[in-house]
Amino acid sequence: MTEVTQSGAAWLSREEMDAARERLPILYVDAVPVRVDEQGVVTGVGLLLRIGEDGQVKRALVSGRVLYHERVRSALLRHLEKDLGPLALPRIPPAPQPFTIAEYFPTPGVTSFHDPRQHAVSLAYVVPVEGDCAPQQDALEFSWFSPDEVREATVLAELANGQSALLLQALAHLAV
Amino acid sequence: MTEVTQSGAAWLSREEMDAARERLPILYVDAVPVRVDEQGVVTGVGLLLRIGEDGQVKRALVSGRVLYHERVRSALLRHLEKDLGPLALPRIPPAPQPFTIAEYFPTPGVTSFHDPRQHAVSLAYVVPVEGDCAPQQDALEFSWFSPDEVREATVLAELANGQSALLLQALAHLAV
Amino acid sequence: MTEVTQSGAAWLSREEMDAARERLPILYVDAVPVRVDEQGVVTGVGLLLRIGEDGQVKRALVSGRVLYHERVRSALLRHLEKDLGPLALPRIPPAPQPFTIAEYFPTPGVTSFHDPRQHAVSLAYVVPVEGDCAPQQDALEFSWFSPDEVREATVLAELANGQSALLLQALAHLAV
Amino acid sequence: MTEVTQSGAAWLSREEMDAARERLPILYVDAVPVRVDEQGVVTGVGLLLRIGEDGQVKRALVSGRVLYHERVRSALLRHLEKDLGPLALPRIPPAPQPFTIAEYFPTPGVTSFHDPRQHAVSLAYVVPVEGDCAPQQDALEFSWFSPDEVREATVLAELANGQSALLLQALAHLAV
Repeated sequence: MTEVTQSGAAWLSREEMDAARERLPILYVDAVPVRVDEQGVVTGVGLLLRIGEDGQVKRALVSGRVLYHERVRSALLRHLEKDLGPLALPRIPPAPQPFTIAEYFPTPGVTSFHDPRQHAVSLAYVVPVEGDCAPQQDALEFSWFSPDEVREATVLAELANGQSALLLQALAHLAV
Repeated sequence: MTEVTQSGAAWLSREEMDAARERLPILYVDAVPVRVDEQGVVTGVGLLLRIGEDGQVKRALVSGRVLYHERVRSALLRHLEKDLGPLALPRIPPAPQPFTIAEYFPTPGVTSFHDPRQHAVSLAYVVPVEGDCAPQQDALEFSWFSPDEVREATVLAELANGQSALLLQALAHLAV
Repeated sequence: MTEVTQSGAAWLSREEMDAARERLPILYVDAVPVRVDEQGVVTGVGLLLRIGEDGQVKRALVSGRVLYHERVRSALLRHLEKDLGPLALPRIPPAPQPFTIAEYFPTPGVTSFHDPRQHAVSLAYVVPVEGDCAPQQDALEFSWFSPDEVREATVLAELANGQSALLLQALAHLAV
Repeated sequence: MTEVTQSGAAWLSREEMDAARERLPILYVDAVPVRVDEQGVVTGVGLLLRIGEDGQVKRALVSGRVLYHERVRSALLRHLEKDLGPLALPRIPPAPQPFTIAEYFPTPGVTSFHDPRQHAVSLAYVVPVEGDCAPQQDALEFSWFSPDEVREATVLAELANGQSALLLQALAHLAV
């Protein structure tokens, strides 16, 4: 029932994490996995299929918390490997500048993003993925969509917590 | 002895904040105040002079924590007004993309940035300031330097916690 | 019938410019004028109304060529003052990094952007405008739209050359 | 003695290109080749060794013109393959946003960048390179430097046209 940090030194029990979530903005990373051709043109965008806390099946970006004493780029790699498997070969961007930040508020309507559990601020990156992806743990499926497919209303509607807004921001940043 | 959030609902005692600082990365903003001419060319870079926790006088960027339920842009404005006074007229950037992030680790040497108190991840912005600046609270002085002056070794050496690295990153981003 | 550079030394006759347009990519700047509140939140997006070369009335961003021996930031200021008038008080961004580039091709369909006259590559910036705007020269009107209004299909359809795509990229970058 | 575009339709003789260079800003791309580890941390920065037009041996970034009807990302790939060979496997960034632009003026001192031949505006990108690099054509050598080595004064002094400033901007953007 506990989350343990990579450094091993510090950890938070579920109760302590719940308490922190009511008091502090929690730092996250969001990754938009993409397939690219040799000119860097995006040919595919990857989405996970998960069962949410409310039991509903939802699409999702790769997303997760940055741990104590963990670098942002290590957190990105950890969450990508955790969700897409050890053979995904994600290419973590060399520069730390995110293409945007997403501010998830527990109160709906403050921003486009909403997380009933917490106030989370997420650093968002586009990550080219070169290897074979296999959904891990609580993910049911991982699928590649063409840029045109992924912005269809039916796909966007399957994304939870306002992540459709973040996906559209990524597509705009990629100019696809 | 307590820090109270703007929303008023949640707050952390000094003891609770100290506990969180040992368990979670804390979200910060760093602002590099600049004077610009009508073409946007940077003519001045502003630095605070403070007495640090060790009693030493140090230069500093405008920097501070993002509170629970506070937007990043609100935190930027709050810290700029707190440090530079109510007449500073900072121009908060319209886009949320920071020019970089600075990862302050409690252990020296992991990155260029070091904060013995905590693991802090800071979103860094360049903020044009148009009004009159007057140091507030614990700041002794606020001074404008030309881009050439501010990158002199004597000035950089007065910045604490690796903020000289962040200042140089800002100057590189500004191409001055 | 000639365009004269600011430096005065070099200039291109209409015929020479037409010849260059068939041989070289031409460097442009695009500016998205915005109104912001004190926290930098975008409250308005400005669009020009022009009569296009085909005689049709069209909305447009502020856009124009970078001249020989002219800095990009000088070109931005020149085009903003030319289109919005001398009292517009545009705040040219201090950093030269554009939020995106738009590649206008003479052949439709290579990118989202199309310019039948030429291959133009435009550096795109969001520019807060603080003063009073009055349309100049060949512009019929300059109007502020709320972020929600400006992304309505009827407004987007009035933008020529694929500038609706650039406007949507700007809105995504601004997270509005 | 002629440069021919990829599209084959339009081309410029050496004389016509020389004429254009006296009249228009010419669009370039600059690439900073890097080696990265699996977390995206930069472990090496690549520089070419060339004989300049003045007969002096100089270090250089990968740099070149964007041709008529050529996409910026195609120009990046073309110049990287031309200078580093067909087995270099450059990873062209998926997003078109450059980390900065470099404005090379024929007059020294306008910006940090100087090109006696022309007014060039270059879109600058960091490009991870995964394969084997072999200098091609007029390059004598291609070498990897550690981030610490490459910022040594002796190495920076070997870069021509102010490219040392661009290299330092890239290192700042990469936070190494």
